[in-house]
Amino acid sequence: MGWTTAELAQRVGAVLEGDGTIEITGVAGIREAGPGHITFLANMRYATDVARTRAAAVVVPRDWDRPCAAPALLRAPNPDKAFSLIAQWYAPAPIVPPPGVHPAAVVSPEAKLGQGVSVGPCVVIEPGAEVGDGTILFAGCYLGHGVRVGKKCKFYPHVSVRESVRIGDRVILHNGVVIGSDGFGYTVNDKGVREKIPQIGIVEIGDDVEIGANTTIDRARFGRTRIGNGVKIDNLVQIGHNVVIGDHVVIVAEVGISGSAEIGERTILAGQVGVVGHVLVGRDCIVGAKSVVTKDIAPGQFVSGFPAIPHEEEKRLHAHIARLPELKKKVADLEARLKALESGNS
Amino acid sequence: MGWTTAELAQRVGAVLEGDGTIEITGVAGIREAGPGHITFLANMRYATDVARTRAAAVVVPRDWDRPCAAPALLRAPNPDKAFSLIAQWYAPAPIVPPPGVHPAAVVSPEAKLGQGVSVGPCVVIEPGAEVGDGTILFAGCYLGHGVRVGKKCKFYPHVSVRESVRIGDRVILHNGVVIGSDGFGYTVNDKGVREKIPQIGIVEIGDDVEIGANTTIDRARFGRTRIGNGVKIDNLVQIGHNVVIGDHVVIVAEVGISGSAEIGERTILAGQVGVVGHVLVGRDCIVGAKSVVTKDIAPGQFVSGFPAIPHEEEKRLHAHIARLPELKKKVADLEARLKALESGNS
Amino acid sequence: MGWTTAELAQRVGAVLEGDGTIEITGVAGIREAGPGHITFLANMRYATDVARTRAAAVVVPRDWDRPCAAPALLRAPNPDKAFSLIAQWYAPAPIVPPPGVHPAAVVSPEAKLGQGVSVGPCVVIEPGAEVGDGTILFAGCYLGHGVRVGKKCKFYPHVSVRESVRIGDRVILHNGVVIGSDGFGYTVNDKGVREKIPQIGIVEIGDDVEIGANTTIDRARFGRTRIGNGVKIDNLVQIGHNVVIGDHVVIVAEVGISGSAEIGERTILAGQVGVVGHVLVGRDCIVGAKSVVTKDIAPGQFVSGFPAIPHEEEKRLHAHIARLPELKKKVADLEARLKALESGNS
Repeated sequence: MGWTTAELAQRVGAVLEGDGTIEITGVAGIREAGPGHITFLANMRYATDVARTRAAAVVVPRDWDRPCAAPALLRAPNPDKAFSLIAQWYAPAPIVPPPGVHPAAVVSPEAKLGQGVSVGPCVVIEPGAEVGDGTILFAGCYLGHGVRVGKKCKFYPHVSVRESVRIGDRVILHNGVVIGSDGFGYTVNDKGVREKIPQIGIVEIGDDVEIGANTTIDRARFGRTRIGNGVKIDNLVQIGHNVVIGDHVVIVAEVGISGSAEIGERTILAGQVGVVGHVLVGRDCIVGAKSVVTKDIAPGQFVSGFPAIPHEEEKRLHAHIARLPELKKKVADLEARLKALESGNS
Repeated sequence: MGWTTAELAQRVGAVLEGDGTIEITGVAGIREAGPGHITFLANMRYATDVARTRAAAVVVPRDWDRPCAAPALLRAPNPDKAFSLIAQWYAPAPIVPPPGVHPAAVVSPEAKLGQGVSVGPCVVIEPGAEVGDGTILFAGCYLGHGVRVGKKCKFYPHVSVRESVRIGDRVILHNGVVIGSDGFGYTVNDKGVREKIPQIGIVEIGDDVEIGANTTIDRARFGRTRIGNGVKIDNLVQIGHNVVIGDHVVIVAEVGISGSAEIGERTILAGQVGVVGHVLVGRDCIVGAKSVVTKDIAPGQFVSGFPAIPHEEEKRLHAHIARLPELKKKVADLEARLKALESGNS
Repeated sequence: MGWTTAELAQRVGAVLEGDGTIEITGVAGIREAGPGHITFLANMRYATDVARTRAAAVVVPRDWDRPCAAPALLRAPNPDKAFSLIAQWYAPAPIVPPPGVHPAAVVSPEAKLGQGVSVGPCVVIEPGAEVGDGTILFAGCYLGHGVRVGKKCKFYPHVSVRESVRIGDRVILHNGVVIGSDGFGYTVNDKGVREKIPQIGIVEIGDDVEIGANTTIDRARFGRTRIGNGVKIDNLVQIGHNVVIGDHVVIVAEVGISGSAEIGERTILAGQVGVVGHVLVGRDCIVGAKSVVTKDIAPGQFVSGFPAIPHEEEKRLHAHIARLPELKKKVADLEARLKALESGNS
């Protein structure tokens, strides 16, 4: 039920320094770790904690040369990665629900389930839906009419997928995710009253996508809202109708993307960002936290602020704002000196 | 299974130009459209795409006079509206669950269901709840004790409505909407510990309201949180206790409205706006994206920023900020020239 | 079915002024109140409404000396508290579901339920979960494998708690809350593709915590995400992996807290605040609405803005920005005067 420090060093390809005989019983953060624990240093923010940790062992970068309170050091080229491996060995076995349909699930006879699919209690699958081999649907998930879900997906409890949505392979949807709700579209009639524009498109999600808890993705007005392959979306994100998210995009929590916007491949949107409708954010961009993108952004830019402008420029403006009191004083001083000159001249 | 370009032009009252014999097989956006598709131009942002679309036909404004790559043009007074009609004809038939109570639903014998109500699997309806004629409750919805829901409503899966809430006719609630959760109210006792203020009011929702996925609306501390007729609310919006939303208000995604604020009729709150508690936003206002309303706003204003001020004023301040580097240089220049004068005078 | 104004005054320890014989039939806000209602004045914003309320009685502060339209006044040291008591007496009896397991619930035989636990329809409890005495689980809640929930908790419909999460006593989780979803953590491989870092920690929630509708709290990468005792969290809040929230912290709606951040005891985060990863907000701080905390904040500070700085300083900068047009004019004026001097000197 565990390994010694020497065994762990060997298993992750680290160089051991100090006591190799300590039996490691678990993993923990550098501040919470106690005797028997192994911990790690990946973020230099916590460097001083190495000198006072109570852990038995610390995984550190190869060139670490500062004091360490633990009796064993494991020098690794990538401490984060090495520690992740170790953490998994000490983790409880992951929950793998048994294949088959729980008697309290409601699966339409017109739905099609692949091999080894697991359907939890209170799951509802409507007619025409198809689920690929090895996919797991935890309790209370809902798949609408004609939904297609790929292989080896994992949908946590209370996921809702509305009719005709298509989802690729190995997609993870966390609890409460909603895919395919109606887009937010209305026309205003003669009396100033809004009439609903039918939202008859779908959502199409690629392979290897992960979507965080309670995030919502609207179906297209027509055609499709598209989430590319390898996209990672955090919790409580809103994605509007007809949005196109390129492959391997990363979207952090509480971002909102308005209808028909397009996000290029590999771009990263930090937390609480807003993107207005119909704009194009190029590929390989970074948009800083809480920024608002109001117009197209060329590929490869790091932008921030509202409106989002190149980050360096935004930082300069911020510095100018911070020095406004100083500028005001200087102007007052100039005025006084000018006045003195003027009266001298009169 | 389709219509020709001439038939479609006639059906939507458009003037056909070009080939009227093409069989249209589907609808698509101007960039995605292929042979056999009809598309449209409503947003001038996409005007140049008309010259290179692969669509068979494009619905354009009446006075369109630029190149078009498609063999058929349909000139319409309102291309958006005309296209919406066409899109519906090509859409799959909408999902209409059959009336009746699914055997896997749990409906209290003390609840009252109108004619033609459809209750999906895993729906739970508590004692005293009443549901009007023709209302559809998709799988997994919850109606608490004494809830009253009007006629012809549509609640998508996993909607939660807590006790005593009242909802009008033709209301659409998207997946995961929560109506009637407790307001966020506490008193601080002598020991600095917060004690819950009972939230014993209700939420009252008018007719023809639509509320987006995973939006939350808190019940009143006492009395009612009120959502007027014709209000349209997007996804992931938070509405606090005792808030009053006037008729035909539009609230875009991720807005947060604090307790006891009041939003006047027909006002539009753009995405990610915040409204502090107890303020009154007048009717017919527009509040720009990500603004924070910190005090009362007179009717008819377009405001933006934090704090929200008239939009024109905010734009001017932004322009001043953008020119700060210039202003700083000018001040430095003045100082140098003044110094020269001063030394000349000495 | 009610009390007279005199009886209510006596029951809350208020001094009655005016008619003590009026039968009070209900409570209402000062603007909505009608005959037979009692209302109150706690927020001076509504002071002028006292002169025109249609209520039968108003609870006012002890030293109230302005006109009142109601025939009865109740002078109380804390009108808010006195009114809260009265409001409860007039409130409908709270909904208390009967103890026992509903036949439409799915409870693993390997789960353990305490005395008097109430399990609603469509609740799913996985093997190894434990629920303390007197806890109420409304319809459609989900408790994952090995979850431990304390005594006298109340989970409203559609709450999701994933495996191994631990929750204290008297915790209230509102509809759609998700506890223990995976943290948002990836490594980027050689091909620029993100690989999931296993999230094998848990969430630990203290006693007397209340969490608002559709809020999400991620499990730790390893170790625990920790929510202290007495913490109050509003709707649609996102809390990342390994975050530590101190006792009695208050978090208003739509806040987002990134991974490994730490919020000190009794600190208040106002609505729509963002906190970046790994920072420490000291105890007894206030962070103003929509601010972004980008670095550590010392205890006891009131900060605001992006980046969050001491609030007084931020207000000064705002005032400087508002006066930028003025500053610009002054600089132009100085320039003109300087030019005049220069030409006079030449």
